Amino acid sequence: MSSEFKAGNLSVNIFGESHGTAIGVVIDGLPAGEKLDFEEIMRFMSRRAPKKDGTSTMRSEADIPEILSGVLDGVTEGSPLCAVIKNTDQHSADYKSVSTLARPGHSDYTGYIRYNGANDLRGGGHFSGRLTAPLCFAGAVAAQILKRRGIDAAAHIYKIKDIPDTPFDPVNIDTETLSAVKTRYLPLIDRSKDEPMRNAILSAAKELNSIGGEIEYCALGFPAGYGDPMFDGLENRISRAVFAVPAVKGIEFGAGFAVAEMNASENNDEFYIKDGKILTRTNNHGGILGGISSGMPIIFRAAIKPTPSISRPQKTVDYVNMTEEELVIKGRHDPCIVPRAVPCIEAAANLALLSYFC
Amino acid sequence: MSSEFKAGNLSVNIFGESHGTAIGVVIDGLPAGEKLDFEEIMRFMSRRAPKKDGTSTMRSEADIPEILSGVLDGVTEGSPLCAVIKNTDQHSADYKSVSTLARPGHSDYTGYIRYNGANDLRGGGHFSGRLTAPLCFAGAVAAQILKRRGIDAAAHIYKIKDIPDTPFDPVNIDTETLSAVKTRYLPLIDRSKDEPMRNAILSAAKELNSIGGEIEYCALGFPAGYGDPMFDGLENRISRAVFAVPAVKGIEFGAGFAVAEMNASENNDEFYIKDGKILTRTNNHGGILGGISSGMPIIFRAAIKPTPSISRPQKTVDYVNMTEEELVIKGRHDPCIVPRAVPCIEAAANLALLSYFC
Amino acid sequence: MSSEFKAGNLSVNIFGESHGTAIGVVIDGLPAGEKLDFEEIMRFMSRRAPKKDGTSTMRSEADIPEILSGVLDGVTEGSPLCAVIKNTDQHSADYKSVSTLARPGHSDYTGYIRYNGANDLRGGGHFSGRLTAPLCFAGAVAAQILKRRGIDAAAHIYKIKDIPDTPFDPVNIDTETLSAVKTRYLPLIDRSKDEPMRNAILSAAKELNSIGGEIEYCALGFPAGYGDPMFDGLENRISRAVFAVPAVKGIEFGAGFAVAEMNASENNDEFYIKDGKILTRTNNHGGILGGISSGMPIIFRAAIKPTPSISRPQKTVDYVNMTEEELVIKGRHDPCIVPRAVPCIEAAANLALLSYFC
Amino acid sequence: MSSEFKAGNLSVNIFGESHGTAIGVVIDGLPAGEKLDFEEIMRFMSRRAPKKDGTSTMRSEADIPEILSGVLDGVTEGSPLCAVIKNTDQHSADYKSVSTLARPGHSDYTGYIRYNGANDLRGGGHFSGRLTAPLCFAGAVAAQILKRRGIDAAAHIYKIKDIPDTPFDPVNIDTETLSAVKTRYLPLIDRSKDEPMRNAILSAAKELNSIGGEIEYCALGFPAGYGDPMFDGLENRISRAVFAVPAVKGIEFGAGFAVAEMNASENNDEFYIKDGKILTRTNNHGGILGGISSGMPIIFRAAIKPTPSISRPQKTVDYVNMTEEELVIKGRHDPCIVPRAVPCIEAAANLALLSYFC
Repeated sequence: MSSEFKAGNLSVNIFGESHGTAIGVVIDGLPAGEKLDFEEIMRFMSRRAPKKDGTSTMRSEADIPEILSGVLDGVTEGSPLCAVIKNTDQHSADYKSVSTLARPGHSDYTGYIRYNGANDLRGGGHFSGRLTAPLCFAGAVAAQILKRRGIDAAAHIYKIKDIPDTPFDPVNIDTETLSAVKTRYLPLIDRSKDEPMRNAILSAAKELNSIGGEIEYCALGFPAGYGDPMFDGLENRISRAVFAVPAVKGIEFGAGFAVAEMNASENNDEFYIKDGKILTRTNNHGGILGGISSGMPIIFRAAIKPTPSISRPQKTVDYVNMTEEELVIKGRHDPCIVPRAVPCIEAAANLALLSYFC
Repeated sequence: MSSEFKAGNLSVNIFGESHGTAIGVVIDGLPAGEKLDFEEIMRFMSRRAPKKDGTSTMRSEADIPEILSGVLDGVTEGSPLCAVIKNTDQHSADYKSVSTLARPGHSDYTGYIRYNGANDLRGGGHFSGRLTAPLCFAGAVAAQILKRRGIDAAAHIYKIKDIPDTPFDPVNIDTETLSAVKTRYLPLIDRSKDEPMRNAILSAAKELNSIGGEIEYCALGFPAGYGDPMFDGLENRISRAVFAVPAVKGIEFGAGFAVAEMNASENNDEFYIKDGKILTRTNNHGGILGGISSGMPIIFRAAIKPTPSISRPQKTVDYVNMTEEELVIKGRHDPCIVPRAVPCIEAAANLALLSYFC
Repeated sequence: MSSEFKAGNLSVNIFGESHGTAIGVVIDGLPAGEKLDFEEIMRFMSRRAPKKDGTSTMRSEADIPEILSGVLDGVTEGSPLCAVIKNTDQHSADYKSVSTLARPGHSDYTGYIRYNGANDLRGGGHFSGRLTAPLCFAGAVAAQILKRRGIDAAAHIYKIKDIPDTPFDPVNIDTETLSAVKTRYLPLIDRSKDEPMRNAILSAAKELNSIGGEIEYCALGFPAGYGDPMFDGLENRISRAVFAVPAVKGIEFGAGFAVAEMNASENNDEFYIKDGKILTRTNNHGGILGGISSGMPIIFRAAIKPTPSISRPQKTVDYVNMTEEELVIKGRHDPCIVPRAVPCIEAAANLALLSYFC
Repeated sequence: MSSEFKAGNLSVNIFGESHGTAIGVVIDGLPAGEKLDFEEIMRFMSRRAPKKDGTSTMRSEADIPEILSGVLDGVTEGSPLCAVIKNTDQHSADYKSVSTLARPGHSDYTGYIRYNGANDLRGGGHFSGRLTAPLCFAGAVAAQILKRRGIDAAAHIYKIKDIPDTPFDPVNIDTETLSAVKTRYLPLIDRSKDEPMRNAILSAAKELNSIGGEIEYCALGFPAGYGDPMFDGLENRISRAVFAVPAVKGIEFGAGFAVAEMNASENNDEFYIKDGKILTRTNNHGGILGGISSGMPIIFRAAIKPTPSISRPQKTVDYVNMTEEELVIKGRHDPCIVPRAVPCIEAAANLALLSYFC
């Protein structure tokens, strides 16, 4: 079974293990002749980097991707683009105690069964959140190609624990807002939420715990008429990409789960005409009807679970020796992965959208 | 762009238009030698049939699938299985008034752009909910093959509007409960909710409105170790299948969106050993860790929007003549599609699980 | 493992067994808005029909495809097109003696192993040459869509046994020649070869034997710049499609196997400019360089083995009872399948080319 | 459009440009727990390395692949395996004169059209024969995994120009012969052909020309019952892989094009039983019937064109300036690529066979 993203003529293969030689990505099917701004890619990737203020792991990850192929003088050639990030900061010792104890909420046990014990356990191996670095690289490339087609996209923290940011306005969202959230310390619309969110994270860290949240994505300018009904609609394709981000446990488009308690008269989005364009007055459909884009902003939210690695003692099993054990996870971990997951969700969704232009 | 479901070595192609000659499905990649019980298939499909009590459309759909290929003496041959359902009850007249007015919440406009106006508009054409009949056929075939591998699955109404059913017990759910919900008039665990739910639907119908809900799915006995990290994990594959069901606007696995407000110490599922098997005491992970099955029940919920077809006057546009219009949808429509969507969700998820055995 | 043709956004699924209820095809990914001429489709398919002069089987196959979906008022809708051909003339008795004796040159034994004995043996089941009827249907649809993009294609008998037809002129071939061969009794450029070829076939039939041959295909007007290097070039894609035709044992493009004995100075095709277009003076490359079309005619030849069904006694095994046996195949069979295989090869290659426009 | 090899659950992506930073491959879907012998991989790859005797290019390519992921302590982990080969010996100057003159027989012009001029022209870029180095790496990995399942495979020179080697005995071929050809200077069964072949190559070189040939492949021990009818049979899958090797212009299985002139009574392979196994007395079918393996040796031949790069003056065009020009290709080139293409053909076919075990 393959772990690649193949949609339309685009295929994305992310490879590597947390403590292996390198991680990276091959992107095949990119249009030729696309100018890539490397600084911009680095800016995208830096949004995923750990914060230095205690809200995330203290590991330093100077993740400079090296482009091995597919780009000539900064322009895509149409051949597969491979980018590689060396693994330099590998504190294997931190993980020694994990050994064959299944960390609750992690894939240690399922990976062991799946790969008959042959997979690299150090730092989560191929399951590591570190694999989202090449995902962000690919998503940053996608962003630039989408931008050239008039499409802007961004994600922000929708909420951390019970502290909400202001949601994207599903109808009137503008490019400026999308750009702005990318530059902020925490990717928020309402900057007053920065402090309470950080306090919530620090307080969880203090209690040797971690907390979850939600992330909201919006793509603006995606033209009407892309997608398909049935199994390969926009929702199918986006959700297929987004569940690649570890810790995602749910996705909802437009009004999402709230539609369950709505009447059609509330939920149906009325069409009207403005400046010769067909629009809807509300956007409960999240820009997608029948699997196909409507031209309205594409909006979804993803649920992010609390980082499973916490330093509290946890009951678990040794899945090799088949004994029940107590586990204390050492090492530096994110007390809340949500801020760093924002560009990852953005990257995954960007790739899904890009596939329509490959 | 293709609308097929292709996962592992399984491919499922659903074809047909609501008012065309026939609808149907080709399932390629099925294991050979699987005995199919046709009565059982019909029983599965009948759960999707309209109720005769006012809670759904009055159209009679005697949908008897004819198997054209792939089955010999009731046993799969390993070659593609094609099943066809004739369209007999086609009241095209009911849809004449729809013409080129975009029904809010429907794909009329997006389909028009996508297919340059060449798609069949009658009854929704290829976008019609009627296409879920062959989906249920395929899902019923999948159910029998999964059953033979020790896997039982069922879906039930999780809630209609704000009226909840009892959820599946994510840890102790048993086969009997899964079987029982399939035989009930409304697929419910708590039969006392049958009446209030029906009243809510009838009351929506009286107000020329419709209501939504949520559906919960559970697969029991799915062995640990199936799936993959990244883009083709179990969540990716299931969500890709489930969004094929029209009206789905969200999906969540295990604790789902509730993880956003949980701490890791609450959300992490503790492993333990029972009768030589590794289990978890809670099942917030919904049977999936790192994209791979854990052996615990696979559980997800899908949000179903209220049927967009309502008889109230709605403001909309004529997308060909580019004028703003008022629309009154005639014909018989489901005031709540949730009960009929239950076997559809079940079918879609069954196909995703089946793909691991093809 | 799946038997579908999936290339670009096109997928083609051919289903059915020789003596089952029906055979047919689902074509997904067709562009919307393509007018289909049904008479033209029937004309294409009739070229595959058995001749009534003793050179082919006497079975009458009134194969009228019924289009179940994807076409409205003769125009493609963009949704999957399903066409079905009922099996009416099923003389199962003829095949009774075959039982579990492996017919040499047939897939009885390999199919038995592959499908654990669950596959339909009557008339070859899903392996039957009869499955090329829906292939021709699909190829006929492709031909019309290609035609509208300026692409004409045809195949002819390149040789039967050691009797050659005049080859296509790889540089100066014109549309008229392509059209002409389609209308002839045997698809030949040099009509004087009609009689000797027919005599060779009749003489093989008289000796209870059968003979093989080669088929040549040409597509004219296929624009430069389609295809890719490595695994999904034009040659890869075409050969993938062409080996779907039973009895094909080889394929060669342009000068083909003759390149083995050529020098580069002979084989290299010199570029020149004519009327502002880049052309080559010779066409040993068969219109494909580096997996990508050059704008020159796309030309290949396929080797067709002699029909394995002959009425002579043959030594073989009973693969169920594991005994050595003598087999006499009864029934009506083609003493040379080459003439009927011509539209099949054409159809398969048309689908490969069509995939670049889906 | 994507250039990857995707078959069953295996996907192979080869990336890189001749004069870029690096070339490499990602292999996804490999079974976990497979011990890889790196020495053995290097031995496989060295068979592709240039000879130092004038029969091939003088460029030194110390192509040591670095495995970045997917392998732990020499054992596959089940996660994507990425291997990279740095480009060190880049004499770009040699290629300066090529500029935008289309080298006859090369993909300069078709690549220019395909990628709108954005592709790297230096040394053929992504079209370079150099990309067969990672192909050989992947094929060497495949060989080891196949070996562990009882499958041995090798290719040899079938002929160079009109000088034939002894063909593989399609029925009695043994493992020793397969092993032996891999160790010889030229991969030949009949060592007496070594000298005349080398002379033919040197003589072509002296005349500033190049020559072609044929390569034969055999896989021994591939079990019966793998493959499928129609579009994804063994022949379809193998030919899809083999046409990835530049310079291949044809492929034939078993008796191949010779079947055209055979009667069924000659071509049909009689089944018999030996030691409780079903075998055929001849092997014109090349181990494949109906797209499915028969258990007999899998045998095919591929036609290799003469290296198009020759130092003679050639007439051609400047495809940017649209002028007719004369071209003299400088640099060091193979006067016959056949010997070095042998492991490449072997690698491609190995991958096709491996896909049935992923």
